Amino acid sequence: MTRLTALALPLIALALAPTAARADVVAKAASPDGHITLTISLDGEGRPSYAVQRNGNPLIADSRLGFMFTDAPKIERNLTLADARQASRDTNWTQPWGEWSTIRDHHNELKLVFREKGDLQREMDVTFRLFDEGVAFRYSLPDQANLHHANIAEELTQFAFAQGGTAWWKPAYEWNREEYLYNRTPLDAVGTAQTVMTVKLADGTHVALHEAALVDYAGMNLARAEGNTFRADLTPGAGAPKVSRDAGFSTPWRTIAVADDAAGLYMNHMILNLNEPNKLGDVSWIRPGKFVGVWWNMIKGEWSWAQGPKHGATTANVRRYIDFAAASGIPAVLVEGWNVGWDGNWFGNGNAMNFSQPTEDFDADGLAAYARSKGVTLIGHHETGGSASHYDGQLDTAFKWAADHGEQVVKTGYVTDAGQIERVDADGAKHREWHEGQWMVNHYLRVVQTAAKYHVSIDSHEPVKDTGLRRTYPNWVAREGGRGMEYNAWVGGKNPPEHEANLVFTQLLGGPMDFTPGVLSLSGSEGSTIHSTIAKQLALYVVLYSPVVMAADTPENYAKYPGPFQFIKNVPTDWSDTRALNGEVGDYVTIARKAKGSDDWYLGAVGDEQARSSKVALDFLDAGRSYTAEIYRDGPGADYRTEARHAIVIEKKQVKKGDVLAIDLAPGGGQAIRFVASGGKRKR
Amino acid sequence: MTRLTALALPLIALALAPTAARADVVAKAASPDGHITLTISLDGEGRPSYAVQRNGNPLIADSRLGFMFTDAPKIERNLTLADARQASRDTNWTQPWGEWSTIRDHHNELKLVFREKGDLQREMDVTFRLFDEGVAFRYSLPDQANLHHANIAEELTQFAFAQGGTAWWKPAYEWNREEYLYNRTPLDAVGTAQTVMTVKLADGTHVALHEAALVDYAGMNLARAEGNTFRADLTPGAGAPKVSRDAGFSTPWRTIAVADDAAGLYMNHMILNLNEPNKLGDVSWIRPGKFVGVWWNMIKGEWSWAQGPKHGATTANVRRYIDFAAASGIPAVLVEGWNVGWDGNWFGNGNAMNFSQPTEDFDADGLAAYARSKGVTLIGHHETGGSASHYDGQLDTAFKWAADHGEQVVKTGYVTDAGQIERVDADGAKHREWHEGQWMVNHYLRVVQTAAKYHVSIDSHEPVKDTGLRRTYPNWVAREGGRGMEYNAWVGGKNPPEHEANLVFTQLLGGPMDFTPGVLSLSGSEGSTIHSTIAKQLALYVVLYSPVVMAADTPENYAKYPGPFQFIKNVPTDWSDTRALNGEVGDYVTIARKAKGSDDWYLGAVGDEQARSSKVALDFLDAGRSYTAEIYRDGPGADYRTEARHAIVIEKKQVKKGDVLAIDLAPGGGQAIRFVASGGKRKR
Repeated sequence: MTRLTALALPLIALALAPTAARADVVAKAASPDGHITLTISLDGEGRPSYAVQRNGNPLIADSRLGFMFTDAPKIERNLTLADARQASRDTNWTQPWGEWSTIRDHHNELKLVFREKGDLQREMDVTFRLFDEGVAFRYSLPDQANLHHANIAEELTQFAFAQGGTAWWKPAYEWNREEYLYNRTPLDAVGTAQTVMTVKLADGTHVALHEAALVDYAGMNLARAEGNTFRADLTPGAGAPKVSRDAGFSTPWRTIAVADDAAGLYMNHMILNLNEPNKLGDVSWIRPGKFVGVWWNMIKGEWSWAQGPKHGATTANVRRYIDFAAASGIPAVLVEGWNVGWDGNWFGNGNAMNFSQPTEDFDADGLAAYARSKGVTLIGHHETGGSASHYDGQLDTAFKWAADHGEQVVKTGYVTDAGQIERVDADGAKHREWHEGQWMVNHYLRVVQTAAKYHVSIDSHEPVKDTGLRRTYPNWVAREGGRGMEYNAWVGGKNPPEHEANLVFTQLLGGPMDFTPGVLSLSGSEGSTIHSTIAKQLALYVVLYSPVVMAADTPENYAKYPGPFQFIKNVPTDWSDTRALNGEVGDYVTIARKAKGSDDWYLGAVGDEQARSSKVALDFLDAGRSYTAEIYRDGPGADYRTEARHAIVIEKKQVKKGDVLAIDLAPGGGQAIRFVASGGKRKR
Repeated sequence: MTRLTALALPLIALALAPTAARADVVAKAASPDGHITLTISLDGEGRPSYAVQRNGNPLIADSRLGFMFTDAPKIERNLTLADARQASRDTNWTQPWGEWSTIRDHHNELKLVFREKGDLQREMDVTFRLFDEGVAFRYSLPDQANLHHANIAEELTQFAFAQGGTAWWKPAYEWNREEYLYNRTPLDAVGTAQTVMTVKLADGTHVALHEAALVDYAGMNLARAEGNTFRADLTPGAGAPKVSRDAGFSTPWRTIAVADDAAGLYMNHMILNLNEPNKLGDVSWIRPGKFVGVWWNMIKGEWSWAQGPKHGATTANVRRYIDFAAASGIPAVLVEGWNVGWDGNWFGNGNAMNFSQPTEDFDADGLAAYARSKGVTLIGHHETGGSASHYDGQLDTAFKWAADHGEQVVKTGYVTDAGQIERVDADGAKHREWHEGQWMVNHYLRVVQTAAKYHVSIDSHEPVKDTGLRRTYPNWVAREGGRGMEYNAWVGGKNPPEHEANLVFTQLLGGPMDFTPGVLSLSGSEGSTIHSTIAKQLALYVVLYSPVVMAADTPENYAKYPGPFQFIKNVPTDWSDTRALNGEVGDYVTIARKAKGSDDWYLGAVGDEQARSSKVALDFLDAGRSYTAEIYRDGPGADYRTEARHAIVIEKKQVKKGDVLAIDLAPGGGQAIRFVASGGKRKR
C-alpha cells in the first residue's frame, strides 16, 4: 500500500491529480531586473516547492523543500503558508582583498513562513534572495514548542532542472575527497556530485549550484534522483544526525547562479554577498602576497618531510629559500616538515605532530630572525594527518608560536581519506569524521578563529569547500580543496591541459584556490613532463585567483628561466577589478585583472589540449591612457606534448583601450600579459 | 596535498603507476562449468579488489572491497592475503513451496583471509561463491583483539561494470521507498538504485545485482560513483553507524547473477542457495493459496478502513466475502480495517492500532466460526502506520489472537514515508528509522519469527526487500515492496503496460511479490481504466509468482466475468517446476509452471504497450502425454487503450510436447493457458 491511500479518502482524487494541476502558486518574487522569477507552490498535500524561471522560461521545475530528522517526523507536507514578506536591498561593500575592491549586493528577498497543520504545528521558514545573477535560499528553524533541537537526518531540498544539459562535476565521498579531475557528462549522467557543480543547459544557459556561508552544518552534495533532478545529500559524520543544532538557526544558503555564458558565471558575486560581513574588525594585518617554499622537492620525492638525510626543512635550505625570496621580491617562504611528528606513517595519523616543536636541524628562532632581517616572513605548516582533535588541543599554543616566529600565514593539512578524520572525545572515545561533515566544518572555522586572535591567516589544505567565508573571516585567505599542481609532480598523476579551464568555472566559483602554479621547469619526478607550456604557467597567476600564491618551482629552476620568472615577480595577488573576458567550461578562459593600488592590468588566458585563438578587445583598460603590454605568449611550435612546451615569446607592445589583441594559445598553452600604464592621468 | 604523497617516498612511483600495472593477482577461482572466473588482486598499497570474467571477457573490472567505521580506521588497504581456501559443493534441496520443488546448489567457494599490516593487524575475510549462473561474496569480520565490535559507517564494496549497457532500476531513499515505476536508462545514467538492479550489457549479457540473506544488517543500495562503476550505499538508520554488530558476523551476500538473456536471469537460483536452510522445522502448517478480500473497494475509495458509514470490514460484508470464497474454491479472505486504531490520520502514526481488538461492527469470533464452517480462513491485517516499536509491543498478543481466530496468514503494513518508521526506546526516546535500515531489517524478521511460533505466515507490505529469507523462514510467504495493482485503482497512478514485464526481471528475482492481480473489471476509481486486457490479468497469476495470491476484484465484478474467472479458480499457487520460456526486460515474458502434485502445466505471457507475437515450443510438457490446453487469449481488437480491453477468447486445443503455439499479445495484453494432462501415464 502506498501513502496515497493513507490520506483521508476525500483527498485521494486530489492527491492523484497530476502535480502541475494540483499545485497552487502561493507566492512569487522576481530579481531586481525582472529576468529571474520565483514561484512557490503548495500541492494538495501541503507540500511546498519552489521553481525558478528565467526570461519566462522554466529553469528549475517544482522542487521540494523540507527536512528529515532522526528523532521526529519530517517537515515536508501538511504545511500552510502562514506569512510571506518581501524586502529589497541595494548596497555596496568593500573587500579587504580579493578580485574586486567593491561589490554590489542588489537583491529582492522573499521570506516565507510555513506552518504545519495537525498536532505538531511546527514552523519552517525559507528565505529566498533573488539577484540578477541567480537565486539563493536558506531555511530557518525557529526555536518553538515542538522543535527545540533539530537532529537532521537529511535535507529534502531538490534542484529539478527543467531541461537537460552538460555538467562538470566531481564525485562526493570517494577516497580522496576533493582531488578529482572534473567529469564532463550529460546532466542526467551525474552520479553524486560535490558542489560547485556547473551546468550548461541545452539552451546555452549556464548554472552553478553551490552553497554559501557553510557554518555549523554539514556540507551539501548533490545526488541525482532521476533524470535531471538532484537532491541535497548532506555529508555524514560519526554521529547519528548529519546536523545537530539547537533550534533558532539558519542553514547555509543554497545557491543557483545563472548566466548566459561561462564568463558570466565567473562574474557572479552571490556567494560573497550571502555571507556575513567581516567579523574580525581591523584586518590590516592580513597581507596577500606570493611565496616560495621548501615543498616542490618533497612533492617530487627528492626531499623528505621527515628528519633524515633527505630532510628538506633544514636551516641551510630554508636560509637559501629566504635569500631567494628576498632577491626575487617575494615576501614569504613556506616551510613544510619543520616540526616534530613526521617520522613513521603520518598519513591518517598525525598524533605525533607538535606544532610548536621544530626538528633539531631547523633553527626556528634563528631563521625567524634571519627572515625578518631580509624582509621576508615564513609561512608555517600544520599537517594534522587528519588527527583533528589532536590539533584542536594545540591551537592556541601553535598559533602563538607561529606569531612569535613572525608567521603571518599558516598552511594547514588534513591528509587522510574521506571519513577518516580522527575525533577523540574528552572521555577518550574515538570517532571518524568527514572533511565536510558538521564537526569538521566547525573545526576548520575554529582554527581560523583561533589563528585570527594571533593575527595569523589560514591557507587550508584538505579543507572544507569554500563557501565565501573569507568575507566574514578575511584571514581565511585560501584553500586547496582540489587537484592542484602537486599532481603534476607524479609520474601517473598529471593534470590534463583542460584542468584549469575546468577549475575556473567550478571550484573557483566558490573562492580562492591555492593551486601553486609556476613550475617553469615543466617537469615532475623521474623526468616526467607537465602538460603545459611555460606561458600557461604564467597565465595561471591571473586565471586562478588566490591572495596567497606560490611560485612553486625551485630557485635552481627559476634561475634557468629569468625571462618568464620576471612575470611572476611582477604579478600582484590583490586586485581592484576583475573581468572574465571569455571562456567555455573546460575549454579556455581569459581573465583580466587590475592591480590594487595601481593602474596596471594583467591578463591571463589558458586553453586545453587544442590550439585556441581568440580576439580580445582591451575595453577594460582606462580610456585616455597608454599601456605597455608585456606579453608572454606561446612560442612558435609550442605544444604541451613536445619539448617545445618551453617555447615562449616575450615581447612588448603599446596598446590602449579599444585595441583588439589576438590571443593564440598553443595546445596545452596559455598567455600572460602585464599592461603597464604609462601615459595620461592615473585614475583612482 | 593528496594521500599519494603521504606514503613512504619509495612507494610513490609504484602508487602512481596505472592501476592495471600495479595490481597483482593473488587468487583465482572459477565456476563449476569454468565459464565464470574470478580474480582477486592486491595493489601496491595493499588494497584488495575482485574482478569477474565470463568466457574470458571482463564482466566486472577491478572493484574495491572494505569497510569504513564510525569509530576506527577503515579496513581497505595495507592488507595482505593471509590465507585462501577453496571448496566445492553440489547438493539438492527441497522447497516446502515455491516455483521449483527441488533446487540444485552447485558452486565453488573461495575463502580469503586478509590481514592488515601495521599496528592494528585486523582481519577481514571475504568468501566468494562461483555458480554457473553468477558470483556472490560476503564479508566476515571475526572477533579479534582490535575489532570486538563493528560500527560500520559504509561498506566500500564496488561493482565496476567492464562495459556499458541498459539498466532497469528504481531510486533509493525517496518518499515512498519502493513503489516506483522502473527507470530504463543507460547504465551510466543510473542515480542511486535499489536492488534488484538489472542490466543488459552492450554485448547482450544480462546481469542482476542484488543481495541474499539480509539479516541484522542494513539493506544495500547502489550509488553510481562514475561511469559504469557502482558502490554499495547502505540504508541509514536513526543511529550513527549504518550497521552496529559485535564482531564474529558475516554480511549478506552481494550477488552478481549472470545470464545470456532475460529468461536465463529468471531461472537463477543463487539467491535461494545463498540463504540458510529452513530453521522452522516442520512447516506443513504453511499453506500456499489464493485469497479474496475486503480491500479493493477501500483502495478505490468506496469503502473505508476506519469505522463509519463506509466501513468495509463489517460482519455482513465479511460474511459475504466468505460465502464468495467458499463458492469459488478460494481458501482465504483478507480483511483490512477490522481492528481498532484506524480513526484519524494513521498515515505514519499507528500508535492507536490494536491488533487484538476488533471494531464493534466486526464480530471476530462469529466470523472465525463462520469461516471455519465454510472451509475458509481469514487473513489478518496488521497496519502499523510505521509505528514499528508500538507493533513490537503487541507481537505475541497479536499473533496469538490471530491464531485463535484461525488466521494462517497475516498481512502486515508499514505505511509511512521513507525514514519515518517510529522506534521508541525503553526510556521513551523516539527515533526515526528506515524501512531497509538495520533496525527494521531486524524488526521484520522478529515479526516473522514471532508469527512462526503461532503457525502464522507473513505477507509483509511496505517491507524490506526480499533477499531469499523464505528459504530459512518459510512462513515469510510474500511481500509487496513494489508498485502493485493498487496503483491501478487511482486516477493518476496507473501502471503502464510494461510494468509487469519489468517486475519479473527485477524485483521478482528477489522473491515472491503480493501484486494482487485479477481485476477483471479493469476499472479503478471514478471510472478510470486499467492499462491491461482481461487475458493479461489472468496471465499475471502465472507470471508473477507468489504462494499467496489475491483475486483482487470484488465478487460483484467476478460475477460479470465467469469465463475468465474460471482460470483464477483453477490456477494453483504452488509449483513443482518453472520455466521462463522467453522475454526481454520491460517488453514481454512467457513463463510456464507445473502445478505441484499434478501433471498440469500453466503458462502465462504478458507484453507491454506493443502487440507482441512469439512462438512457444511446448517442450516443457511431459512426453507421451496429451493435454487439453484451455487458452485465455486477447480477443479480436483487444487493446488496453480501448473498450476492447475486455475482449477475450477462451478456447480449448489438444496439444502435446513438442507442439509450437503462437502466442499473440494485444497492446497491453497477455495470455494464460491451462494445460490439463489427459492421456498417458502420470509422472511424479
